[in-house]
Amino acid sequence: MTNRSVDSDAWQQLKNQAKRMNAPDNHLSFLIARENRFADFAVRGGGILYDYSRQRVDREVMASLVTLAEERNIQQQFFDMVRGGIVNATENRAALHTAARDFSGQNMEVNGVDIAAEIRRVRKEMDAFAQKVHSGDLKGTTGKPFRHVVVIGIGGSYLGTEFVAKALEGLADKNISLHFLPNVDIDCFGGIAEKIDPETTLWLVISKSYTTTETMANARQAESFMQRHNLNPKDHIATVTAKGSPGDDPDNPVLAAFHIFDVIGGRFSVTSAVGGVPLSLYLGYDRFERFLKGAEEMDRHAMSAAPQNNAPLIAAMISVWNNNFLGYEANAVIPYSTPLSKLPAHIQQLYMESNGKRVTTEGKTLQTETGMIVFGEPGTNAQHSFFQLAHQGRPFPIDFIGVTRPHYDKYAQKSKGVTNHQELWANLLAQPQALATGKSDPDNPEKQFPGNRPSSTVLIKDLCPENIGRLLAFYEAKTVFEAFVWGINPFDQFGVELGKTMAGKIRTNMAKRNEDPQFPAEGIGEIERAYLDILSKGEW
Amino acid sequence: MTNRSVDSDAWQQLKNQAKRMNAPDNHLSFLIARENRFADFAVRGGGILYDYSRQRVDREVMASLVTLAEERNIQQQFFDMVRGGIVNATENRAALHTAARDFSGQNMEVNGVDIAAEIRRVRKEMDAFAQKVHSGDLKGTTGKPFRHVVVIGIGGSYLGTEFVAKALEGLADKNISLHFLPNVDIDCFGGIAEKIDPETTLWLVISKSYTTTETMANARQAESFMQRHNLNPKDHIATVTAKGSPGDDPDNPVLAAFHIFDVIGGRFSVTSAVGGVPLSLYLGYDRFERFLKGAEEMDRHAMSAAPQNNAPLIAAMISVWNNNFLGYEANAVIPYSTPLSKLPAHIQQLYMESNGKRVTTEGKTLQTETGMIVFGEPGTNAQHSFFQLAHQGRPFPIDFIGVTRPHYDKYAQKSKGVTNHQELWANLLAQPQALATGKSDPDNPEKQFPGNRPSSTVLIKDLCPENIGRLLAFYEAKTVFEAFVWGINPFDQFGVELGKTMAGKIRTNMAKRNEDPQFPAEGIGEIERAYLDILSKGEW
Repeated sequence: MTNRSVDSDAWQQLKNQAKRMNAPDNHLSFLIARENRFADFAVRGGGILYDYSRQRVDREVMASLVTLAEERNIQQQFFDMVRGGIVNATENRAALHTAARDFSGQNMEVNGVDIAAEIRRVRKEMDAFAQKVHSGDLKGTTGKPFRHVVVIGIGGSYLGTEFVAKALEGLADKNISLHFLPNVDIDCFGGIAEKIDPETTLWLVISKSYTTTETMANARQAESFMQRHNLNPKDHIATVTAKGSPGDDPDNPVLAAFHIFDVIGGRFSVTSAVGGVPLSLYLGYDRFERFLKGAEEMDRHAMSAAPQNNAPLIAAMISVWNNNFLGYEANAVIPYSTPLSKLPAHIQQLYMESNGKRVTTEGKTLQTETGMIVFGEPGTNAQHSFFQLAHQGRPFPIDFIGVTRPHYDKYAQKSKGVTNHQELWANLLAQPQALATGKSDPDNPEKQFPGNRPSSTVLIKDLCPENIGRLLAFYEAKTVFEAFVWGINPFDQFGVELGKTMAGKIRTNMAKRNEDPQFPAEGIGEIERAYLDILSKGEW
Repeated sequence: MTNRSVDSDAWQQLKNQAKRMNAPDNHLSFLIARENRFADFAVRGGGILYDYSRQRVDREVMASLVTLAEERNIQQQFFDMVRGGIVNATENRAALHTAARDFSGQNMEVNGVDIAAEIRRVRKEMDAFAQKVHSGDLKGTTGKPFRHVVVIGIGGSYLGTEFVAKALEGLADKNISLHFLPNVDIDCFGGIAEKIDPETTLWLVISKSYTTTETMANARQAESFMQRHNLNPKDHIATVTAKGSPGDDPDNPVLAAFHIFDVIGGRFSVTSAVGGVPLSLYLGYDRFERFLKGAEEMDRHAMSAAPQNNAPLIAAMISVWNNNFLGYEANAVIPYSTPLSKLPAHIQQLYMESNGKRVTTEGKTLQTETGMIVFGEPGTNAQHSFFQLAHQGRPFPIDFIGVTRPHYDKYAQKSKGVTNHQELWANLLAQPQALATGKSDPDNPEKQFPGNRPSSTVLIKDLCPENIGRLLAFYEAKTVFEAFVWGINPFDQFGVELGKTMAGKIRTNMAKRNEDPQFPAEGIGEIERAYLDILSKGEW
């Protein structure tokens, strides 16, 4: 089977480049010592700095990567996506997360509906709702204002929001505590139930279809919990859901229902009402809109900057290079900033769910690897955790994320002559360098460092809402650019269906056993049956 | 260079077995359908169930793996470790974390000191101290009892404690909030400073040498913070450190100093005073001791059970099989339990720092891969995040962790005929099965699942302290068993040194610039210099 991913000239050229870069004289310690390395291998755009000077590339590799990007028309595909093209072919849909932060005022017709106007309407509703909650005009059953918001939603319905909320936690001045209840695990519910005050809690149920199993199970628990506390669920629940879903049912009213649209998938939905409602409640709508405007700026950069000056595009091509040509299998994301500690988990979903695919949009099995494994923890914590392996074990590329100014700049106490923020930065600068250069120590093999381990550094200036939007949109654009190189569909997720089907069969057996403890298991295998017995007996 | 890892009979035999297992008729869908698959491919021991029925092994593979384990004497090496042998050769030390939970009352002489007696002494001190804090006999400067404990410690000084504290959060009835301040990032300090009440806060500084840069910088910030609040740091600080370190200095007294010993490394130190002091404060000493006793039970199992019935040993051999013979590069740890949500981060450190090595204990460069990348998030959350890639992208083995009974079993509300806990379990049972069997769908390539993706399931009965101890010790034993197969030293971490040295050079430049803004950078490269300018200007 031919496949455009492996038979093109640019692809073959890059395979040869990889052989060249694997030669000892192209070890990163030599590459980074070349003149103007930083000036020539860093891109500024969309409000961020993307530094790839410690990646295993030279001018020729970069030229070939740009050729590959052009050959695959990835920027044109991005443009088509933004303009409402049916880029999600398997589901016959557009992918219009960029419309969620478009402030141009232009129309965007999708199936006869102006989605841009709909998005503007929802923005106004979120603003008004948040104001009513903050002012105390909207109250719970017992007349108290809301102080807790519990987001009931899983996957894309909370990960991005959690990232942004944590990143901007220092700005949260609305007297609202934000909690996330994603997991169907009753210990997730129980832990939150102990932390909240039922009378001042607003439950925000987020599910496009309003049928997501975990989310519905938790919404039922929440209703039952409210009833036990003599509260009317109608006074304490708002929803973020598709128009006309069971969560947007006039016969079953809630405080408010905010619409989301099938052209914006879960993992790309932070800038829609999925992120908008909880973030407006937590931070105020104005800050949410500033966050959107940062994302919009990055979208425009991704669309309009020439490939060689295009930060997310270059980042995507570096990732393809590391993956398909240098053979790395995983990519760490290490934010040197505690407020960005949930960024790795968000990108893990965004990237792995989008790009963990095995067929092209035409249904052909790919002959190349697609998405890498993404993982990470904040630095310097990660240095004291798994960086031993990064330096002396199995190599993997790293995205280091830096913030020029911290949020809490009032603490001036120094150690060793530097502030904490400078110490953090000393480490953020040292790690990519140590990974790249390595160190020889022939007398002490355990103190030898092979080096040649690649990394990028992504910089934002501070933790303002705009910069968090820029960072989010940077990774969204990088993710889809990579998909466009491979020709896969980053917007579907059929890979999660088989597990759901199988869970359904097991659930049926459990439900029948709940009715009749003697019910013999049916339609499941020997192993699952053994576990059902273990669960019944509590013994093995 | 010969290397015992690749030239032995057992190793060669396993390479042939891998070829055999890669054949289509050994696809997992066939393996798991064999009779008695669950009965024959699960081990019960040390209080846990380790089920490897969904691993890509058969009886012959397992026989060869046990032969390899025997050939490498890994159980004997474990025994030597427990008995105080110098298993940490590069640092000329024993590795005696198992002594921290030994209740046999026997002596353990190390360099003329009975370490067992010392450990018993520290246990009593922790018990007494926690009681004094809980009773309010011990108070802060302003006479108020302690309500917050902030752990200042990084890497092994907090990750394990965080895991255990979260796992047992439901039992925390001592009116103490526990906070972790690992990161030198001032936003880590600032975020915690806003959450605590200075007058009722006990700062627990954990560092064996009492020189760890991050920890010392944060201890200074804390002291300065207390002084600004007119509190005497001596009334609010306790330390966990080596005898005679700067944190155990009679001329500079603190509330209490608890000793730790150089035979217990950071990532193995949860059962020492590193975990003992904060966990006793948070949960009560009695629960900490129950946790120790669970760990002790697992240690005894690891030492005494025959290889084929030895849960951590079998788990280690499966991991070596997946890594060195089937070629997987990463292993996910997915606890289906919110209280176990910090287990992946703990194991990530424990495993990757221990086994991310490139030379044997004799200093020979290994010809085989060592430790895999470890990452994970709780299920079912992970299903809605990165499991798309697990099912249809790049395959990686998974440890599923299950808990038979949840902590919060009082919430009885059902959805679809099952409780939340049953729904959780339906998914926990479905995922390994779906990953193993896959699904053919020739008409819809995007709905095809290749299957043959291996996983294990580790079971504990409930979230009692003993079971958390068992789980912890299971992974500790598994980690060192793997190291013993490869002949590497799992107890040193020289790979973190180069970055520290380089950070020191950058710090020196920053400190000099703090004194003299015109100071020209010295001893660092062009890229780092460019960043120093960016940081000075706040612009790029």
